[in-house]
Amino acid sequence: MARPRAGDIGERGLIEMIWDLVDRELPGSKSGSALPHPDDASAVTLPDGRYLVLKTDMFVRRTDAPRGMRHSQMGRKSVVMCASDLAAKGAKPHAFMHSMGIPPGYRPGRVMELIRGVLSACKDYGMSFLGGDLGESKDLIVAGVAVGFADRIVRRSGALPGDLLAVTGPFGDTASAFEILLKGRSAPAPLRRRLLRSVYHPRARVDLGVALAGTGAVTSSMDSSDGLAFTLHELARSSGVRLLLSKVPVSSAAEEFASIHQIPAEDLALYGGEEYEIVLTIKPEALDMAQLAAARCGSRLLLIGRVEEGRGVALSDGSVERPIEAKGWEHLRHP
Amino acid sequence: MARPRAGDIGERGLIEMIWDLVDRELPGSKSGSALPHPDDASAVTLPDGRYLVLKTDMFVRRTDAPRGMRHSQMGRKSVVMCASDLAAKGAKPHAFMHSMGIPPGYRPGRVMELIRGVLSACKDYGMSFLGGDLGESKDLIVAGVAVGFADRIVRRSGALPGDLLAVTGPFGDTASAFEILLKGRSAPAPLRRRLLRSVYHPRARVDLGVALAGTGAVTSSMDSSDGLAFTLHELARSSGVRLLLSKVPVSSAAEEFASIHQIPAEDLALYGGEEYEIVLTIKPEALDMAQLAAARCGSRLLLIGRVEEGRGVALSDGSVERPIEAKGWEHLRHP
Repeated sequence: MARPRAGDIGERGLIEMIWDLVDRELPGSKSGSALPHPDDASAVTLPDGRYLVLKTDMFVRRTDAPRGMRHSQMGRKSVVMCASDLAAKGAKPHAFMHSMGIPPGYRPGRVMELIRGVLSACKDYGMSFLGGDLGESKDLIVAGVAVGFADRIVRRSGALPGDLLAVTGPFGDTASAFEILLKGRSAPAPLRRRLLRSVYHPRARVDLGVALAGTGAVTSSMDSSDGLAFTLHELARSSGVRLLLSKVPVSSAAEEFASIHQIPAEDLALYGGEEYEIVLTIKPEALDMAQLAAARCGSRLLLIGRVEEGRGVALSDGSVERPIEAKGWEHLRHP
Repeated sequence: MARPRAGDIGERGLIEMIWDLVDRELPGSKSGSALPHPDDASAVTLPDGRYLVLKTDMFVRRTDAPRGMRHSQMGRKSVVMCASDLAAKGAKPHAFMHSMGIPPGYRPGRVMELIRGVLSACKDYGMSFLGGDLGESKDLIVAGVAVGFADRIVRRSGALPGDLLAVTGPFGDTASAFEILLKGRSAPAPLRRRLLRSVYHPRARVDLGVALAGTGAVTSSMDSSDGLAFTLHELARSSGVRLLLSKVPVSSAAEEFASIHQIPAEDLALYGGEEYEIVLTIKPEALDMAQLAAARCGSRLLLIGRVEEGRGVALSDGSVERPIEAKGWEHLRHP
């Protein structure tokens, strides 16, 4: 049998190999961290007890830009990817910087369009832009770095049996958009526009994430960009609990798209990705406080189930329970 | 005439275009920064008056790894690149993280070798490893991020006429090594080994940079990785002064290599790159304090000239002055 390649092991397998090595070679890294792996971001405790929260995420045009995405949208997305992870941890994004790799044949105007998108997202989220590094690569690459601060951070690992399971918005728009872009499925113009906007112009739940963490009501949370099903499984695994859904939060646009094409709407919501909502668990006695915080941000939490003892993720219709598969997008994994 | 490409404008031209755009679109970014562009790193002022100093730098194997470099050495270099910039600003590196781009056909063992190099450098500089992101790209890419803290930061812009000009070590080893690797020049085995080690296994002046900044004797400083001549010009430009060198700090190995090949040793020292020394200016009355701090780190500052009113960089032999050209390596610039 041939020796394995990165593409056989996949992003997640490689990351586990890396952390096994870190545990052996530099064990203080994990034990000294306020947000140890695996979590959405990294954190350093500051002398005043607050947290510096850091996230780096690499946007590679060839794998991360859907067909038709403009350069300003790529720039915006590179900020959203990082800001969303900070928000999911309760950290207010403060600044953004990046290392960019640019192919030598690229038009400078395109690079400036991309920077315009970066700056526009920074403005939206109240972040300053710190610049960074610029080099040469075959792909267009934006390795974004977001730094933020938090008084209180929320880990993936704090969910307890009895907690409520919630999301900050419905799912399925991006999976529907990928059906249009990758499989050539059709949709009426207004629906098509709305669905495509979800992948071209994503938003991070920055104010909401920070406000929710501030209430102290949230016991665990995670950014949903790897897809809802995968995120639920990660949260369950990190907290050592079982998540039982009473419903799948499907967006009205995904419902409409699913009914046109006679495909299961729940699958669009569960097995998509690149949706920057927050999946969280809440102490039941503090639900009102969490909903109040959400309302102040012009949002509403959707309750979708509860935390139980056990492991895995399942969906119940009141009588029958069926397991939800841990499927989702993964870089470097091409079966 | 054809419209320009990134490769016609070069890294530095693109960076200036980006900052012009930032000045228009998000002016608070520059005015609110403790280390505004152009400088080696970025900084955020913390509530207690200390500084959070941040640097991201992209290592691309195809352009940044000299032939024969092992993967562990690439990992080490990706840390050194960032740690050196922090040290030049007086910041003690605290942690390292990275976004990595990996070609799907890459052997996982090579990736682990690279991580070993990252962890070994983290250990050397007292940094913890915070992980990061992993994606797919055509090139092997490590977009490193270093974060550190400083009580006092040193900018590029503080040099004043009358200050002394110094470096933390001699130059020329890497330029000689590139003559061997790129032009096939020869050298006796022990000399060859020493020269090649300078590019395969660079070191950052971490303790020294932090100790020097702590004395308050340093008025401006900069990491020399873009090459000595280029660094001197940048420092002069940022501070609005002229730098007059009384000598070029050539390493003994570069002297030996130059004499074998009958090439000017001073050019090897001035127009190399990837040498991680610190170029700095010092208040004359505080020189003893700076030398004491260096001695405590087992080092010695080499005095190479002085700061004058005016602009540009020149070398004087006591009677005749000749200008030093602002040449150096630049990404995305291939005339």
